[in-house]
Amino acid sequence: MKLWITTIIAAATFAVTSTPQASQLDLNNDLAYQLVESLTVEVGPRLAGSEADARAVAWAEQKFKQLGFDKVWSEPFTMQYWERGNASLRVEAPFNQALVLTALGGSVGTPFDGITSQVIMFDNLQQLQQADPASVKGKIVFINQTLRKDIRGGFYGQVVGARAQGAVEAAKQGAKAIIIRSVGTSNNRFAHTGIMRYQDDVTRIPAAAISVPDAQQLSKILAINPEARLSLHMQNNLPGEVTSHNVIAEITGSKRPDEIVLISAHIDSWDEGTGALDDGAGVGIVMATAALLKKEQPERTIRVVLFGNEEGGLIGARAYAARHAANLNNHVFASESDFGAGRVWRFDTGFGEQALAFGAQVQQQLKHLGIEAGTNTASGGPDVSVLKAQGVPVATLQQDGTDYFDYHHTPNDTLDKIDPAALQQNLQAWLIMTRAIANSQVDLRK
Amino acid sequence: MKLWITTIIAAATFAVTSTPQASQLDLNNDLAYQLVESLTVEVGPRLAGSEADARAVAWAEQKFKQLGFDKVWSEPFTMQYWERGNASLRVEAPFNQALVLTALGGSVGTPFDGITSQVIMFDNLQQLQQADPASVKGKIVFINQTLRKDIRGGFYGQVVGARAQGAVEAAKQGAKAIIIRSVGTSNNRFAHTGIMRYQDDVTRIPAAAISVPDAQQLSKILAINPEARLSLHMQNNLPGEVTSHNVIAEITGSKRPDEIVLISAHIDSWDEGTGALDDGAGVGIVMATAALLKKEQPERTIRVVLFGNEEGGLIGARAYAARHAANLNNHVFASESDFGAGRVWRFDTGFGEQALAFGAQVQQQLKHLGIEAGTNTASGGPDVSVLKAQGVPVATLQQDGTDYFDYHHTPNDTLDKIDPAALQQNLQAWLIMTRAIANSQVDLRK
Repeated sequence: MKLWITTIIAAATFAVTSTPQASQLDLNNDLAYQLVESLTVEVGPRLAGSEADARAVAWAEQKFKQLGFDKVWSEPFTMQYWERGNASLRVEAPFNQALVLTALGGSVGTPFDGITSQVIMFDNLQQLQQADPASVKGKIVFINQTLRKDIRGGFYGQVVGARAQGAVEAAKQGAKAIIIRSVGTSNNRFAHTGIMRYQDDVTRIPAAAISVPDAQQLSKILAINPEARLSLHMQNNLPGEVTSHNVIAEITGSKRPDEIVLISAHIDSWDEGTGALDDGAGVGIVMATAALLKKEQPERTIRVVLFGNEEGGLIGARAYAARHAANLNNHVFASESDFGAGRVWRFDTGFGEQALAFGAQVQQQLKHLGIEAGTNTASGGPDVSVLKAQGVPVATLQQDGTDYFDYHHTPNDTLDKIDPAALQQNLQAWLIMTRAIANSQVDLRK
Repeated sequence: MKLWITTIIAAATFAVTSTPQASQLDLNNDLAYQLVESLTVEVGPRLAGSEADARAVAWAEQKFKQLGFDKVWSEPFTMQYWERGNASLRVEAPFNQALVLTALGGSVGTPFDGITSQVIMFDNLQQLQQADPASVKGKIVFINQTLRKDIRGGFYGQVVGARAQGAVEAAKQGAKAIIIRSVGTSNNRFAHTGIMRYQDDVTRIPAAAISVPDAQQLSKILAINPEARLSLHMQNNLPGEVTSHNVIAEITGSKRPDEIVLISAHIDSWDEGTGALDDGAGVGIVMATAALLKKEQPERTIRVVLFGNEEGGLIGARAYAARHAANLNNHVFASESDFGAGRVWRFDTGFGEQALAFGAQVQQQLKHLGIEAGTNTASGGPDVSVLKAQGVPVATLQQDGTDYFDYHHTPNDTLDKIDPAALQQNLQAWLIMTRAIANSQVDLRK
């Protein structure tokens, strides 16, 4: 590990001192890649609240210090811990065979003997909600909705409701359990996990996802025999409240240190992959951005926040907003990298009218990277949307998400899925955007 | 299921009666696809010797009868049964995390408490064989050899030795267990299973494969810390001898019924996928070929053999050769489809000199399908190579295997990986070849 650190510091030093133009010096810089490689190899999966999550927090603190950040600290928050156990799903009749599944995050388990029942298929959540409860009662609900691909991942929001709300809606109709077709775009046989929700006044039933090929298989079986029966066994662990952390580090502003330019990613990941795309890539990009800008002595303070427990529902981001509620006015800007490692193709802002010309200037600086002008309706990213709701100006360097949901939340989210050249392009875009904002005096607020 | 049968028969009937030219009538015929769909959906995985294997045999007998074959029967053989149990592999130090693995077929399990040990990496089997036993003793061996892609799958033979012989060679050097990088070409996080061997005079140690991304991860971990430790837990079931079957069906020859044109595939599959590419596609192709040729009243008998337990080491093929040893002279030709569902691109023969002109004529008939002339060194296919060794003439319709080892022997070998158009092209090629041979009087024997 020691050798590796020397290499990183050397790379960063070389990059910053060898050429005067930042946009040139970053061209061949692979610091972001080195960081995501280190995180995914040396920590691996880091489910929020787990022992590995704590190792990831320690990893981040250590790396920030080694990279020469002026301040490094962590902020604890409490969260409900959930841990995956064994799970299996079989077609019991008419064609006995196993299907590939994964528990959805937060799901309860089945009784030890499992749940064996007829299955009833729906095309989407709405169809389930409109079903006759008599047709659902006592059965396992199967929602078989397809996620389509696009550069913005724009169909995700239309489909993910079945994952988040499916268990509540199925339980309302009297179902014993719910399985959904994975909210993913690949026909590789991986089931996609992700957070699901219960409602206090509705029975908590087990919820799982099956892979896309398994969803196709099950629908073919149901076409032959609509009375097909499934047997679901699933054990999960919900031990209660634990502590996790947001990790924070700063490059102190040389002229306006009280004005905070917040760039961020999330440090937690789902437990089955190594979280390279979600969100190791973002961690590497924003850590490298601030580290590389240090030598330029930016005028405003650059604060890197690695949020904890994004996957559980922006838990770290909400804790951050609550803890810093009194000084969010000092947050002159916030943005997050959390959409994989695809190239940035568009620059969206969430600025006040007075700052749109400045935004256009930044886009002009980004243009040579193939980045288009976007809208002024940016969310800033999942965690940062919580700050946006409190009035913090945001921007989004929109990444090409065409393939993101091929890997997202599956065991297949591993380092080899990152294209180092695309990651470098991200880093360059983040350097340009962050530098411009850190060195400006423009009030971006709406 | 009844509806489906009607559809198949209707399709076959339509195809055969609607146009007089066989090479035209098959163009839009999807009988091969319907058969592989039926097998993979209604039976699914069918590990040799398992209850599902018996269901596959029953499925095949029923389908042959429904398709109007003149004779249908099964021939039992005995085999050693092996069944996968639970398996897990963790890096215990320095970076605790789980790796994705699968037991190799035939492997013993670990003690219940697992095997925890330092790991030692080799580039290939030869390097392991040449290692100092003192450096291997008591460790877990890791062979990290990459399989490269090509249209013929030609690198497979160079790499698969580590899977087949690795446990013996590692045990000779004193290793406690062996894990290999999957013999596969995809960076999807699936581990590839496949048969491995023990030797009577060498200690039987557990053998498993890890996925390609996990092999990369482990090699990165070892680069940081060569003393990394692994913990392997694996339970498998080796209950001993069971009975499986070859399924055989014939279209009786109209002029020379005693001359057998044998076309074949294998009915068994590995247990983790549904065996669509390996070898459901072949089953569909050869069953459809003979079924569609029935109405043409071929002169020689067309015998379809669906071999059992190919995956365990051509066990069904050896049983067939032994049982039919006395009349292999009547086998005027044999060929097998067992290389997935990619397009046929080359026609290889294993004919006597006197039959090469006939072979060239067949290739001319195949040319419009994009099929080149090949060599006269065909194996005929894995199972058929056993018959070739007994003097039976063979040919191989070589399929494009560029992507075959992306899916082969993984959970990802499922129906959606078959391109129906490519499967149709295979069927057309098989019809042309089989028709030409069944209606000829040429002696193909060397």
